[in-house]
Amino acid sequence: MKKLLFFTACCLAMALGSSAQIPALDRVEPMFWWVGMHNPNLQLIVHGNNIAARKVELNYPGVKLVAVHKVENPNYLFLDLRIFSGATPGTFPIKFIKAGEKPLTYSYALKARNHSADRIQGVTDKDLMYLIMPDRFANGDKNNDSFANMREQGIHRDSMFSRHGGDLQGIMNHLDYLKDLGVTAIWLTPAVENDEPAASYHGYAVTDHYKIDARYGTNELYKKFVDKCHSMGMKVVMDLVHNHAGTEGYTIQDMPMKSWVHQWPKYTRSNFKYEAVMDPHASAADRKQMLDGWFDRRMADMNQNNPYLQNFLTQNHIWWIEYAGVDGLRLDTYPYNDPAYMAKWAVDVKAEFPRMTIFGEVLTPLPFTQAYFTQGNTVNRGFDTHLPAVTDAAVKDAIYEALNGNDGWDSGVTHLYDILAQDFMYQDVTRNTIFLDNHDMSRVLSVVGEDVNKYKSAMAMLMTLRGVPQMYYGDEILMKNLSNPDGLVREDFPGGWDGDKKNKFTAEGRNEKENDAFNYVRKLANYRKNTPVLQTGKMIQYLPENGIYVYFRYDDKKTVMVVYNSTDKEQTTGTARYNERIKGVKSAKNVVTGENVDLDKLTLGAKSTLVLDLANSR
Amino acid sequence: MKKLLFFTACCLAMALGSSAQIPALDRVEPMFWWVGMHNPNLQLIVHGNNIAARKVELNYPGVKLVAVHKVENPNYLFLDLRIFSGATPGTFPIKFIKAGEKPLTYSYALKARNHSADRIQGVTDKDLMYLIMPDRFANGDKNNDSFANMREQGIHRDSMFSRHGGDLQGIMNHLDYLKDLGVTAIWLTPAVENDEPAASYHGYAVTDHYKIDARYGTNELYKKFVDKCHSMGMKVVMDLVHNHAGTEGYTIQDMPMKSWVHQWPKYTRSNFKYEAVMDPHASAADRKQMLDGWFDRRMADMNQNNPYLQNFLTQNHIWWIEYAGVDGLRLDTYPYNDPAYMAKWAVDVKAEFPRMTIFGEVLTPLPFTQAYFTQGNTVNRGFDTHLPAVTDAAVKDAIYEALNGNDGWDSGVTHLYDILAQDFMYQDVTRNTIFLDNHDMSRVLSVVGEDVNKYKSAMAMLMTLRGVPQMYYGDEILMKNLSNPDGLVREDFPGGWDGDKKNKFTAEGRNEKENDAFNYVRKLANYRKNTPVLQTGKMIQYLPENGIYVYFRYDDKKTVMVVYNSTDKEQTTGTARYNERIKGVKSAKNVVTGENVDLDKLTLGAKSTLVLDLANSR
Repeated sequence: MKKLLFFTACCLAMALGSSAQIPALDRVEPMFWWVGMHNPNLQLIVHGNNIAARKVELNYPGVKLVAVHKVENPNYLFLDLRIFSGATPGTFPIKFIKAGEKPLTYSYALKARNHSADRIQGVTDKDLMYLIMPDRFANGDKNNDSFANMREQGIHRDSMFSRHGGDLQGIMNHLDYLKDLGVTAIWLTPAVENDEPAASYHGYAVTDHYKIDARYGTNELYKKFVDKCHSMGMKVVMDLVHNHAGTEGYTIQDMPMKSWVHQWPKYTRSNFKYEAVMDPHASAADRKQMLDGWFDRRMADMNQNNPYLQNFLTQNHIWWIEYAGVDGLRLDTYPYNDPAYMAKWAVDVKAEFPRMTIFGEVLTPLPFTQAYFTQGNTVNRGFDTHLPAVTDAAVKDAIYEALNGNDGWDSGVTHLYDILAQDFMYQDVTRNTIFLDNHDMSRVLSVVGEDVNKYKSAMAMLMTLRGVPQMYYGDEILMKNLSNPDGLVREDFPGGWDGDKKNKFTAEGRNEKENDAFNYVRKLANYRKNTPVLQTGKMIQYLPENGIYVYFRYDDKKTVMVVYNSTDKEQTTGTARYNERIKGVKSAKNVVTGENVDLDKLTLGAKSTLVLDLANSR
Repeated sequence: MKKLLFFTACCLAMALGSSAQIPALDRVEPMFWWVGMHNPNLQLIVHGNNIAARKVELNYPGVKLVAVHKVENPNYLFLDLRIFSGATPGTFPIKFIKAGEKPLTYSYALKARNHSADRIQGVTDKDLMYLIMPDRFANGDKNNDSFANMREQGIHRDSMFSRHGGDLQGIMNHLDYLKDLGVTAIWLTPAVENDEPAASYHGYAVTDHYKIDARYGTNELYKKFVDKCHSMGMKVVMDLVHNHAGTEGYTIQDMPMKSWVHQWPKYTRSNFKYEAVMDPHASAADRKQMLDGWFDRRMADMNQNNPYLQNFLTQNHIWWIEYAGVDGLRLDTYPYNDPAYMAKWAVDVKAEFPRMTIFGEVLTPLPFTQAYFTQGNTVNRGFDTHLPAVTDAAVKDAIYEALNGNDGWDSGVTHLYDILAQDFMYQDVTRNTIFLDNHDMSRVLSVVGEDVNKYKSAMAMLMTLRGVPQMYYGDEILMKNLSNPDGLVREDFPGGWDGDKKNKFTAEGRNEKENDAFNYVRKLANYRKNTPVLQTGKMIQYLPENGIYVYFRYDDKKTVMVVYNSTDKEQTTGTARYNERIKGVKSAKNVVTGENVDLDKLTLGAKSTLVLDLANSR
């Protein structure tokens, strides 16, 4: 859920066929396609002034124009193409013909697919994901900071809601830093065009689905960014927004038909109640408001029951995957989308890209709600979402309760134990993204009251619990702030801009405390990267006793023991209770310090966590 | 979970073969059996001094002695019988032979089954269940108040933990009262013998599985009680305790083998954490402590992995059902039992009695936990409990939150909405028992701070929500008290004893306020009894707005609308929002007052609930 409190209510003009300045042939999307896709059907959306008055001609071996759809708005045509398996790569003209006028021609390309092994790899629990807001990480190209033909002008680094100038080149300049930290996958908040008049930096109000925002770079540069990540052994996660779009996009300013977006007699917000979707007793009215209500006046709520819109979105996403070779997909505001469409979308995407991994944003402290939205016949009786995974906010909240709460029957660290016990509800919980924060949330350091012991414990849990760990840029250098107002958690990474006073990408630029945090995270991240049992090993946990929580990751070869003392006092403990995993091992290695520790007498600092390598135990 | 705080820790003597006073042939159980059971196998437990030294002889057409098992304790034999389909009812001797001695003989009876239609009917959402503690409802037979050969002596009505003298005859004397109230099923806390030295009245420390406690009556009287209920159109629910038994029973005092109960090096209580059973990451140690740990030193924790114990319990329950013809089963402390055994038990019981209904006691505020323990591949991946239903404590807690809390994003009445939205997790939630209180909990009137509006709203929800409603004796006459200490919620029903100052079984004995409550409950209970849509109709609920919560029960013929104002102020509301259920109906009948109300302008008292009959709406 994006919090866009900074938008004051303003009126949205949604016109049908009224844009006089539209060129006769404005756009054909997808701009090109590929031969050899699993789905032979392709629906082109064609936009141009009164384009519906024209006939369409197309001749290319292996390609058939199956149907031409006119819709409410004469500025649109939808062309159904069938691309047969015998089609070969090449280009061909699509002609838009009107008697007495020279035909308009679009040169359509069908390309060969790229099946390289290092593309579209999937992002799994073997990875460590690092989330970046491209506007806020590093400015690698000052020439693309602002464009005269775009609505928001200039960069204003003193305002949290303005553009700051970060870009793809800036990220590319710091891939060495990320690789050194132990990162293996990079998730960018949406990098496609958000040509909105205000607060366009966040990326979730898309105005051109087929174009990287010029202030980040170009489509070609995005592809280059992905290729460079792949060449360095890192993956890329693309952030997709199905639910809504920025109101300045062409399909919103000049809608194909009224049903392109969810229309209401008067502006109606979503009720934001996931229950209205999950509830077997739900009223149709509540369910409709949840799914079809708008997030914000500036973000048009897309009508996913409209088959043209379905094709538009699904093809756009498939286009980006095949074009850029991204490895994973993060789906924004998942529960607000039409469930049937999203299920079909996931099936369609996985049919094209079997290794692709997908996780949906589901913000709830309740595992069963998360499980409801994931695939498999678990809790969601009779309907399969085909969504492999979600953002595991329940585990995040539970980690914070373990750090900040007092251990009790179902509170403090026992709440974390309780939440993990609910993993039985998922088809495969190890696909879930686990995290401590992201661009919509208070940063970890602030949530734990800037207590470094708690911060380190949080990071230790992130690196050792089941699932796909995700960090938020700058947490490793102790960036802080609370989510309200949310701009504050989106500060620039110090050193990403020429002239920054400190460059915290380097040890020299960080102070002692920051280096201590950085080194701690780097140590654990790289240990995790080189320790398969922390990626894919089984987990066993023990009901906390005396505020001490113990869990293990293990497989046939190795065991890692994690011990967290949730109390405010140093404690010493034996480990006899854990014999079913320890089996007589007497000592272990503290992964962070390298020291050997005596398992019969473990000393645990207040709110601190030990990660112990029991390498030779089994 | 029984709270037995009043037991001080004391030592339990568990002996093997050391009871010198045991007769040579003490018991054969089940004492008799039936021909024509689905399962042809029967295992008799034989107890007698050094009985294992004897040979066993048995000759009866259609019955085969398949095996004789000697076990650790020579005072036991287990006889495996097979009863073939051709066997006819009759009696035959089982001889226990020792060279040089006269054989011991037990005359075993095989009876014909009783297939009458009014026996073993099942208890469903068509019913209204009324829970009675037999010691505390009415004393119908003063001759059975105390027995010289039982451990607890006399009746002491001034002590909440002593026997008070209530009995089956007392209940039978007041069936007219219950029928008039609208009750259709009676659940008694266990009526089998609890010959414990203290606090034996509660029934959950069974000392003789095959005998009604003499202070309640006899086996024959229990059967008569069930027959009488059936003849009056009421059903009977039997309360079964698998998990533990009173320590004074013969199988505990002189155990067949050490593994009859869960043995621990030192006394070990359960950790009471359901999570340790549900958790896919659970340590074996935590799971074992949850399932095998004891509830209390005076209640031996039965080892349900022991096949002899499995047969002992399952046959005992089947015996009672066939003998007495009870209609439903309530399973005590369900999550503490061995899951695999309980699943097999349920399959075995339902194989004999397909109409039997079963619900397990599961005490949690969390629907997914309740759902975990119910049958069907819902949330409990890969394991089917075969348990049709549970006590729906989550709905109880949510009703109280709706009554006592302040409406918010997920609090107050919206919490009730949220909880009911979670019904998607059950195979069939309508089988769940819904309730406001029972013998282990604070009474409804006290939980709502003795606010009669809230009390009435609670009762209205109980009578109109999905599931099988269950009342607790005396709630209808405003009996009150909190659960701590729990004896206080187990006070005598005034008028159940000769010489009671007031007889609240009659309108004359109740004061005005009590009659008002009684009449309210009676009205709604009888309306429910005569209104199928409140029993089996579908439900639709609306997200609360302005603290007003609306739900409907409906089917093709009828609609009932329930409107609860959770605020502290009177409110007036329209009903246009509910059009999908109301469809232009303008007025409805207030079920309690009989008045017509204007649906365009509903007046709602603070914390009050309207139950509206929209009979002609569809």
